[in-house]
Amino acid sequence: MTENATETVEVWEPWELVLTGAEVGNPFLDVDLRARLELGERVVEVGGFADGASRHLVRAVFDEPGGWTYRTTSNVAALDGIEGSVEVVAGERPGPVRVDGFHFRTADGARYRPVGTTAYAWIHQSDDLRAQTLETLASTPFTKLRMTVFPKWYPYNEQEPPRHAFPVAADGGWDLQRFDVSFFRALDDRVAELAALGVQADVILLHPYDRWGYARLDPLTEERYLRYVIRRLAAWPHVWWSLANGFDLMPGKTDADWERIAAIVAEEDPWGHLTSIHHCLRFYDQSRPWITHVSAQRIDRYRTAENVDAWREQWGKPVVVDECGYEGDIEHGWGNLTAQELVRRAWEGAVRGGYVGHGETYRSPDEVLWWSKGGRLRGDSAPRLAFLDEIVGSAPGGAIDPLPSEWDLPVGGVAGTFLLAYFGGGRSSFRTFVLPEGTWRAEVIDTWNMTVTAVPGEHAGSVRVDLPAREFMAVRLTAVGGAADGRAREATDSAGA
Amino acid sequence: MTENATETVEVWEPWELVLTGAEVGNPFLDVDLRARLELGERVVEVGGFADGASRHLVRAVFDEPGGWTYRTTSNVAALDGIEGSVEVVAGERPGPVRVDGFHFRTADGARYRPVGTTAYAWIHQSDDLRAQTLETLASTPFTKLRMTVFPKWYPYNEQEPPRHAFPVAADGGWDLQRFDVSFFRALDDRVAELAALGVQADVILLHPYDRWGYARLDPLTEERYLRYVIRRLAAWPHVWWSLANGFDLMPGKTDADWERIAAIVAEEDPWGHLTSIHHCLRFYDQSRPWITHVSAQRIDRYRTAENVDAWREQWGKPVVVDECGYEGDIEHGWGNLTAQELVRRAWEGAVRGGYVGHGETYRSPDEVLWWSKGGRLRGDSAPRLAFLDEIVGSAPGGAIDPLPSEWDLPVGGVAGTFLLAYFGGGRSSFRTFVLPEGTWRAEVIDTWNMTVTAVPGEHAGSVRVDLPAREFMAVRLTAVGGAADGRAREATDSAGA
Repeated sequence: MTENATETVEVWEPWELVLTGAEVGNPFLDVDLRARLELGERVVEVGGFADGASRHLVRAVFDEPGGWTYRTTSNVAALDGIEGSVEVVAGERPGPVRVDGFHFRTADGARYRPVGTTAYAWIHQSDDLRAQTLETLASTPFTKLRMTVFPKWYPYNEQEPPRHAFPVAADGGWDLQRFDVSFFRALDDRVAELAALGVQADVILLHPYDRWGYARLDPLTEERYLRYVIRRLAAWPHVWWSLANGFDLMPGKTDADWERIAAIVAEEDPWGHLTSIHHCLRFYDQSRPWITHVSAQRIDRYRTAENVDAWREQWGKPVVVDECGYEGDIEHGWGNLTAQELVRRAWEGAVRGGYVGHGETYRSPDEVLWWSKGGRLRGDSAPRLAFLDEIVGSAPGGAIDPLPSEWDLPVGGVAGTFLLAYFGGGRSSFRTFVLPEGTWRAEVIDTWNMTVTAVPGEHAGSVRVDLPAREFMAVRLTAVGGAADGRAREATDSAGA
Repeated sequence: MTENATETVEVWEPWELVLTGAEVGNPFLDVDLRARLELGERVVEVGGFADGASRHLVRAVFDEPGGWTYRTTSNVAALDGIEGSVEVVAGERPGPVRVDGFHFRTADGARYRPVGTTAYAWIHQSDDLRAQTLETLASTPFTKLRMTVFPKWYPYNEQEPPRHAFPVAADGGWDLQRFDVSFFRALDDRVAELAALGVQADVILLHPYDRWGYARLDPLTEERYLRYVIRRLAAWPHVWWSLANGFDLMPGKTDADWERIAAIVAEEDPWGHLTSIHHCLRFYDQSRPWITHVSAQRIDRYRTAENVDAWREQWGKPVVVDECGYEGDIEHGWGNLTAQELVRRAWEGAVRGGYVGHGETYRSPDEVLWWSKGGRLRGDSAPRLAFLDEIVGSAPGGAIDPLPSEWDLPVGGVAGTFLLAYFGGGRSSFRTFVLPEGTWRAEVIDTWNMTVTAVPGEHAGSVRVDLPAREFMAVRLTAVGGAADGRAREATDSAGA
């Protein structure tokens, strides 16, 4: 029994217990290691994992200040009964993102809005390319990144990754009894890099685009992998679990398999990270209690973001349209949208109370497409998505819900104080708005050119708003003196061209 | 009993029997007049109508050459037993449009494709404006015009028409026991003007946009009106019946009423003109046998023309999307489309084997909007709709049906010989087509700029087609030596920019 010195960490700061020196046959198979964390009556149980032949780790994070204690249990004597204490102090860390009705907040209560993008296989690229990806993320509005643990084999993704999750066995196949620790340490590093940028890591645990066998692991290996990766990553507050990208394309998996997988994830994650499951052709039953939010893909070539309000009603959960089609020019219909069209979809989803994500698939001689490999963005949608986020953020409470709308003009907002009407592809030259009670200010928003132009005066009863007869316009109506008023004006000033 | 001299008319040339001098109390109520037309074993029964106090007409048209005879029956002696003969000779008239599977042909067997537009109330406008409308129709590709019998009261349509269908009674209301013949003679003239232009008259018998009472006629008056207008117009081969515009907005009418109305129309129309019923919020049951083709309105702000193939399958009839939204800039979502969007919808419908119509609603200081009043077009869609019609017309047989397609690229055509793939809002930089058996030529079609560019060479197996990464592109694939080959090349030459 070893006693470590008391450490000090902040609330929501990842903490790691390193236990070295216990030599066992196969540390990945032969060691059971758990830790029990306690603060007064509170108990948190967490699993440990091998990080090398004689190196074992327990990772945890604390949601409450105080003098936490820990004690390990293990089938290996050298790892059993390790005790210690951790002084957890209040800090400024926002903590994990939690569901807040149809929206999100971080654990500290601050509003969080997903402005997501996708670079599935970015962690499997060269150092230079990954550095570019991080630079891009640092200079763009994205607050969430979808990424796979396993490498991707797919058009524009036909190369070997630098590392694999399993070592090679004597017969040339994978040694599925062990993990290649360097693969998972690299994953740790990538996740840490996103944490440093304040970008949520939407970690896709399984996906079908594979030629190495990751999509067809036998159930026992798959379970070991899941427990391993969850134990490694769960102490990071900014990690989300996406059970799969395209769950319904995974060979041989039934819904019962996904339920089993979801149970494993929940069992290994004491902190309740956001959890979703992404589909290709059919939604998984999004009413399942382990699904915290809907992670939607395009369900129709013409109409997807426009379903956000219906999906909210259907499942009573936040709707994140992670894959509505990507800005780009490749041959596939999922990756040949104009920036205008992607931004239009994002607005259609936003005024219905949802969050539509980004991806970019411009052809490039080097086959580096952001959607999968990361790198640099070449398109025009990202600044417009930032602008949209700013406009939504100007609502009181920083989030909007769908409000009663006429058939041809969806309106989102906060009833009584803040209305955001989006015209999409319609290009009217004017519109008359019947106003709720009170006095209102109106602004014309050009969602493409990112300008906000005030309509003169204050208005009661109704207001006729002249529009430039262009596509992609919106109108923001703000109750004078309402909670939204100050914030709306502030946003206007900064967003004005 | 009077015997008229033998007249000579061509097959499908409207013929009229004029009977004057029979003075009765109320010629609209007190006279029953019918004629029996015979050719050998064939008998056609047709109703007559009053065209003034002492003027009665029987109108007919003959679908077969030969020595036809007629004989009237009437409750008024002076109109009863009138006999005569009509020498019907072969001519060049195409005759009425008939359903041909999911498409149309005129009675002479020639392909007819609806390139429709809408000017609902054009007949109720000034002489000058109507002359403009006819000039516009003469110089645009439209082969069908939707028009109401009754005047329209609606935004941008807030004026009195020059004539009404009923005379004013002593109490200042309508005298519903009589018709104002000048109103219906003007209707005759307008229908004749369209015939002269070769434009099908899609005559809307009832509509809800009314302040004079036409939408709320009592059932007996309504029935008298229907019998009267059908008897007046049915001899024109180019007339179609649209029972209603927005049947479900008509006050107080049940489906049983519409069935009754449809039966009246069929009873008075011996020639089986095309008959449809247009909706606002819900389709009428389009499987009803009296409905010859689906006349569809936008059923969703985002996705309507894309349903054409499903509707064809559902009802087994041609689908004409008469109202998919209009090019314009008014405040309403049904009238604020860009030309690009309307043309996109037309292509989406076309490659699914349907026909999407046009309308235009640009704001104008004089409130003359083409969609209702006619006049001049200001938009950009009409030439593109002509181009689309030309491309569809280049298919063997002059019509295309939906063919098996990938999810992101609808393909219409004639299996084995002619394929037309439409990219819509997707703007890929290339696409590889797997070709059916045989050797094929490929052309890139820019549906907006109206150009056709040949891909060099002839291809078998597959062909990779480079595209300009712009929206609104199509690819035409033509089997070399197939039936379509010569026509396709011809169309290419004429359509090339």
